[in-house]
Amino acid sequence: MSPQELITQLRSFLPPEAVLHETEDLKPYECDGLSAYRQLPMIVALPHTEEHIVKVLQLCYATNTPVVARGAGTGLSGGALPHAQGILLSLAKLNQIIAVDPLARTARVQPGVRNLAISEAAASHGLYYAPDPSSQIACSVGGNVAENSGGVHCLKYGLTVHNILKLRVLTIEGEVLEIGGESLDSAGYDLLALMTGSEGMLGIVTEITVKLIPIPEKAQLVMATFDDVQKAGNAVANVIAAGIIPAGMEMMDKITIHAVEEFLHAGYDLEAEAILLCESDGGTGEVADEIERIFTIMQQSGATKIRSSQNEAERLSFWAGRKAAFPAAGRVSPDYYCMDGTIPRKQLAQVLQGIEQLSREYGLRCMNVFHAGDGNLHPLILYDANQPGELEKTEEFGGKILEMCIHAGGTITGEHGVGMEKINQMCTQFRSDELAMFHAIKSAFDPKELLNPGKAVPSLHRCAELGAMHVHQGQQKFAELPRF
Amino acid sequence: MSPQELITQLRSFLPPEAVLHETEDLKPYECDGLSAYRQLPMIVALPHTEEHIVKVLQLCYATNTPVVARGAGTGLSGGALPHAQGILLSLAKLNQIIAVDPLARTARVQPGVRNLAISEAAASHGLYYAPDPSSQIACSVGGNVAENSGGVHCLKYGLTVHNILKLRVLTIEGEVLEIGGESLDSAGYDLLALMTGSEGMLGIVTEITVKLIPIPEKAQLVMATFDDVQKAGNAVANVIAAGIIPAGMEMMDKITIHAVEEFLHAGYDLEAEAILLCESDGGTGEVADEIERIFTIMQQSGATKIRSSQNEAERLSFWAGRKAAFPAAGRVSPDYYCMDGTIPRKQLAQVLQGIEQLSREYGLRCMNVFHAGDGNLHPLILYDANQPGELEKTEEFGGKILEMCIHAGGTITGEHGVGMEKINQMCTQFRSDELAMFHAIKSAFDPKELLNPGKAVPSLHRCAELGAMHVHQGQQKFAELPRF
Repeated sequence: MSPQELITQLRSFLPPEAVLHETEDLKPYECDGLSAYRQLPMIVALPHTEEHIVKVLQLCYATNTPVVARGAGTGLSGGALPHAQGILLSLAKLNQIIAVDPLARTARVQPGVRNLAISEAAASHGLYYAPDPSSQIACSVGGNVAENSGGVHCLKYGLTVHNILKLRVLTIEGEVLEIGGESLDSAGYDLLALMTGSEGMLGIVTEITVKLIPIPEKAQLVMATFDDVQKAGNAVANVIAAGIIPAGMEMMDKITIHAVEEFLHAGYDLEAEAILLCESDGGTGEVADEIERIFTIMQQSGATKIRSSQNEAERLSFWAGRKAAFPAAGRVSPDYYCMDGTIPRKQLAQVLQGIEQLSREYGLRCMNVFHAGDGNLHPLILYDANQPGELEKTEEFGGKILEMCIHAGGTITGEHGVGMEKINQMCTQFRSDELAMFHAIKSAFDPKELLNPGKAVPSLHRCAELGAMHVHQGQQKFAELPRF
Repeated sequence: MSPQELITQLRSFLPPEAVLHETEDLKPYECDGLSAYRQLPMIVALPHTEEHIVKVLQLCYATNTPVVARGAGTGLSGGALPHAQGILLSLAKLNQIIAVDPLARTARVQPGVRNLAISEAAASHGLYYAPDPSSQIACSVGGNVAENSGGVHCLKYGLTVHNILKLRVLTIEGEVLEIGGESLDSAGYDLLALMTGSEGMLGIVTEITVKLIPIPEKAQLVMATFDDVQKAGNAVANVIAAGIIPAGMEMMDKITIHAVEEFLHAGYDLEAEAILLCESDGGTGEVADEIERIFTIMQQSGATKIRSSQNEAERLSFWAGRKAAFPAAGRVSPDYYCMDGTIPRKQLAQVLQGIEQLSREYGLRCMNVFHAGDGNLHPLILYDANQPGELEKTEEFGGKILEMCIHAGGTITGEHGVGMEKINQMCTQFRSDELAMFHAIKSAFDPKELLNPGKAVPSLHRCAELGAMHVHQGQQKFAELPRF
């Protein structure tokens, strides 16, 4: 069907302003948070209701038109990169908080609701929604579900999949699936988990029931300074080994410390090779005990300076630097590329050394700021897009980091998803039988491959062309037995 | 292929004692914990290694032979009921704990390892494996994964899916899938959650990496007596509303209290209409705080007697009655049927009244003992299989209870799975589009439908014949829009 015919069809059930096709109207949708990849969609549709979405999907299905869902566009892996011959389906107008149930401790929300807006709506009941990606002021819950987003506190409170109960989902044919339930277990295959993190490849989420948890009575933060990254890495392992699950455990390396300190003078120690921020939250007594234990472990792990926040203002000031790491990177470099990989905690020091070495090889600076507690690295590669070839070098450097994560027994995503960005590394992470299973699941939901085509799961052909050497979770490949 | 040919093929790669086909050898495998359903398999295979299983599966795939996996056979929903023309694949011989890693706090185990054996192996490191089904002395981890088992402590520590990190799985074609990872998130669709609770319908698990957590410093139990079930139900809601997540919160009704008290004189109050057991675990200070708060809430909720355990011996004696509920049922009735449904906590009192009414209608006694904290009911219907028609009446009564759970906004399984037992209620729980999606996923993994055929997911044809009225999570069916 021609673009013009599609537009006419869309306008038959969508308000005129909800169908965009002029270049200047399409421009704001050309990329998400991963600005290195840009593509104008053919059409942007901005449905207001679930019924609108059903009709858009039925149209796409009937006309074999690709459809890419988009939330707030804060994603960092290019998952919402438009399709040139497709409809960009913005869920921004579905932004209602339908209900907050303080007794059941749940909230029913539409996908376009901002992450932070849920906690704001629940605050009067003393409740909040735990997952807190750094983009939480702007990012939408639908996008969080699509990418299974985490945040500083996911070490203790889990990722999005651990904090949602029910999803209302539309299939590519426009059929409604209601999956999950209010109880821990639910009958049938776990479609809730399958849908979460599927990056818009399996269906379109139109309603999300999230868990709310009580706002902790108290939160306190320990800031520990180390003269050696290895020691800081060991301190992380020692805290976990002591059976403590901190509310958050964040690490910054020297270059990051300097960048943020110049930026907002948080009072970070410029002598430090690494700074650990370790938060405890819960009941007052519980927090006091835990902070004391963390303090001791930091001492035993060789921290050169240790401070614990004495009040809420101080706690926030300790956090300020960490939260400003990305803007700080923007100040010290024209461009930066935020990576997202996860490794077993015990490999922290070794992988950081590897990154440092790559940084020298590529002649590109790299800031390391990350969720140390769950081994989720966020190296920020600093580059200048105006220097010819530097973006390409940066992407290659980034790819090497991800492959190092896999070799260390980790994975290529911590919380940002695969999207366009890491699709090649999927060939290294998974063997062909596993990729084939992903494709089989994809076609169970979307046989025509119209939902966000080309993202998240590479074709076996692509992997073959790359000739990527499969390394599975740092393990050797299972020796295939002769067929019966 | 004829049974004799299959046996010959199996014996070509399995030791002679690992292939059973004489009726007396097959008899022990005719049912699992749900003894109301019995069926002899054609052949029982007892592989010793993953390579053995690969070959069994390749044989089944090549010859279109159904294969039903079985762990310890303690399942309560008939998930391991054999197939008359199929191979019963016992995983009992794969019972090795491959590795315990105290630093990563994980254990790698084979599927035939007993649930409790993991905690025994980890105890020397001060760690344990949290999920604790009441059958944990006997049940195997592979079965726990297949049914996504829970236990008394899953309110705080989650179900099996929340306590495993990686699975090594064989497809029906004998291909290896390694799914999940050591980090919170992993790339690609969430096959780990999809496989967990899939009741042997999607693949055969050959290795499981479980999370280990530190043994709590302290555990203490509050026992509260109520003269009214409604008040006990409200007490449960009040504890949760106060933001407390108890390690366990169990409820017993009058008939249960009397049955267990006669059995082992645990010191339960025979005047009580309901008894709540509410456990707190963690650091000493934390537990002291929480127990005090729970005590106060029980008082405010109108408990007539409240005691908190003063030492470990007393804590265990309080638990003794709850743990003996099933054997106690066996003493007061020739047979009993253990149901497993889940409802929103706020519906507790109402559903219990409904069960009481059904109990009168059917003239069958029903003991109520359950995980009150997460609304997971385990009504025990007491009957006599030797009374003609009483089993049928019992099953009908049970079915009514499950449908009541669905109408209350709950689900037909809490932790026992669907298996054969609840397959008809799946037609009530899910609409046809959802069942169709389950079937699509099934055929993505097992196109020939050889893995545990006829379990867990009913055919649309079966549902149509039952003419079950779809009631989705207590909600109205979405009005389908006209097709584009």
